[in-house]
Amino acid sequence: MNDQQNSLLLRSLRGEPVERRPVWMMRQAGRYLPEYRAIRATTDFLGLCKTPDLAAEVTVQPVDLVGVDAAIIFSDILVIPEAMGMELIVEEGKGGPRFPNPLRAEWDVDQLASGITDRLRFVFDAIAETKRRLDGRVPVIGFAGAPLTLAAYMIEGQGSKNFDTFKAFLFAQPAAAHRLLEKLAAELIDYLVEQTRAGANMLQLFDTWAGVLPEEEYRAFGLAHASAVLDGVRRAVPDVPILYFPKGVRSYDGFAESGASGFGIDWQTDLRRAAQELPDTFPLQGNLDPTVLLTPPEQIRRRTQQMLAKVPSGRGYVANLGHGILPNTPVENAQAFIQTVKETAI
Amino acid sequence: MNDQQNSLLLRSLRGEPVERRPVWMMRQAGRYLPEYRAIRATTDFLGLCKTPDLAAEVTVQPVDLVGVDAAIIFSDILVIPEAMGMELIVEEGKGGPRFPNPLRAEWDVDQLASGITDRLRFVFDAIAETKRRLDGRVPVIGFAGAPLTLAAYMIEGQGSKNFDTFKAFLFAQPAAAHRLLEKLAAELIDYLVEQTRAGANMLQLFDTWAGVLPEEEYRAFGLAHASAVLDGVRRAVPDVPILYFPKGVRSYDGFAESGASGFGIDWQTDLRRAAQELPDTFPLQGNLDPTVLLTPPEQIRRRTQQMLAKVPSGRGYVANLGHGILPNTPVENAQAFIQTVKETAI
Repeated sequence: MNDQQNSLLLRSLRGEPVERRPVWMMRQAGRYLPEYRAIRATTDFLGLCKTPDLAAEVTVQPVDLVGVDAAIIFSDILVIPEAMGMELIVEEGKGGPRFPNPLRAEWDVDQLASGITDRLRFVFDAIAETKRRLDGRVPVIGFAGAPLTLAAYMIEGQGSKNFDTFKAFLFAQPAAAHRLLEKLAAELIDYLVEQTRAGANMLQLFDTWAGVLPEEEYRAFGLAHASAVLDGVRRAVPDVPILYFPKGVRSYDGFAESGASGFGIDWQTDLRRAAQELPDTFPLQGNLDPTVLLTPPEQIRRRTQQMLAKVPSGRGYVANLGHGILPNTPVENAQAFIQTVKETAI
Repeated sequence: MNDQQNSLLLRSLRGEPVERRPVWMMRQAGRYLPEYRAIRATTDFLGLCKTPDLAAEVTVQPVDLVGVDAAIIFSDILVIPEAMGMELIVEEGKGGPRFPNPLRAEWDVDQLASGITDRLRFVFDAIAETKRRLDGRVPVIGFAGAPLTLAAYMIEGQGSKNFDTFKAFLFAQPAAAHRLLEKLAAELIDYLVEQTRAGANMLQLFDTWAGVLPEEEYRAFGLAHASAVLDGVRRAVPDVPILYFPKGVRSYDGFAESGASGFGIDWQTDLRRAAQELPDTFPLQGNLDPTVLLTPPEQIRRRTQQMLAKVPSGRGYVANLGHGILPNTPVENAQAFIQTVKETAI
């Protein structure tokens, strides 16, 4: 297999010169694509994640249909807690995934299985199958949820506005919370390394709920355990770039020491400020507001160009949205975004 | 009338020496209090806002029941759009307030009434009645929603996770959006000034949805129009402090020029960082995570003390939560918070 046909992403992440910026979109294999919905109609969400042939098929769709420079494997961050023994229910579009029996006490944490990477063979098989189908056209991205974000779902039981239950657990039982986060970090290292063995060329660690904690608590419960994962993976596979995407953080203090090789920047953050606050040696990825893709194409082009202009030309950078593409995005609008990046010389 | 019986709040906001920090809580007149729920059982939410005697009664409750150093008038930020002609439905606890006919086009903006302060007499009467009942025990705080936050509700129609509709409107129709925001700013100046004439000793401008926009758009659509209000009010009533509370902002760049006399800091932000980034001459208010009040009292005491220790002793500061108190907060926990502030010498 050969990824050299489109090496923009990996060259950009190494800080090497590129002719134009590489581009992909978070949740690019998803509901905004009619072709995805057609496959999804034949199986439920978790069934799709767990059937390597189908997962590979939807993973490749946006490469063909919207022309992205990388394929991110179709999966879900919550397959980890499920493999650790928690019942998981995903009804896409119906209030999101949930754990009917969330963690409530230290005892629940102790019951979670460890050494569960073998139970996630379907993910590695999907990556390998995707590599076969792509045959080197674009690189493949593997991913996982960061410990804090997984713990938020596992304790709250589902997505939430305030994550009150999760936060009260963290505040009142910090030792149990750290035990859970350490347990997750250990599994995540194995899981991500195994994704690279299956062929993933880049990794991303999603910390979607980084913003539900006050800054100080995020550092203690979020960043510290994400760092353990980032460090562990980089020690095992130093040549694979791993980006950290902490959505909702207020400052980048301490991020340079996190072990990440680069950072995803959310749409709320001014990309220019991120480029100034994070040392030059770290490539950035992001951060167009996904809502922009609900506006007319000329508006999308203008705002995409404004975004591209914010990053110094010599800096490693990957164009992307600042959060997952919205399911109600017209496909031609996604194409307008990708096309604008492709047409803009550095 | 005499506010000198408890002048901690106003002295603190003027940067004068105080023996201890003043303290109040956002949404302190609210559902966590059984005495509030008893009054609320006799009328609906908007009926309570619009009956000065009842509004004054619930406004005074937390002064008696939890011992706060200021009374914030019981009202709702959405009485402004309602007075401008939009039908408003508030079913507290049932998904929040909503406008069944949200603004959709520039034409809708043109239809909004202006010069509507007289329609809000019930708010000024409630403030005057509160002043009578308090008889100088503690100062009274008036408030309003900032233009961006009101516009978010008026266009989206209700609270929302992503405010997609609102944001797409702003991105696609910026001129109409600015017209709406200017119209709101003009009404808000009159409304807030009139609150001070009724007796409000301090004002707060809530920008609850400041964080739904990217930083750059927040500056253009949010901060700029909030500044117009802050400047206008301070020109009219220079002796009344007005705090700006922009929830969810990522940096404080440009805030010193906003016209605010001080800033509310949300719970996500590290208070120490805010104290460093905002010039010393601006008092701060906040910012305990409301979720902390769901934990045991010893935890509340510890975290409250940690918060107090973050602000340099010579700086103007008002202890508060970093967002409204949660309805499921036990009253004794709210009391533990207030008591801890009162027992902590500067």
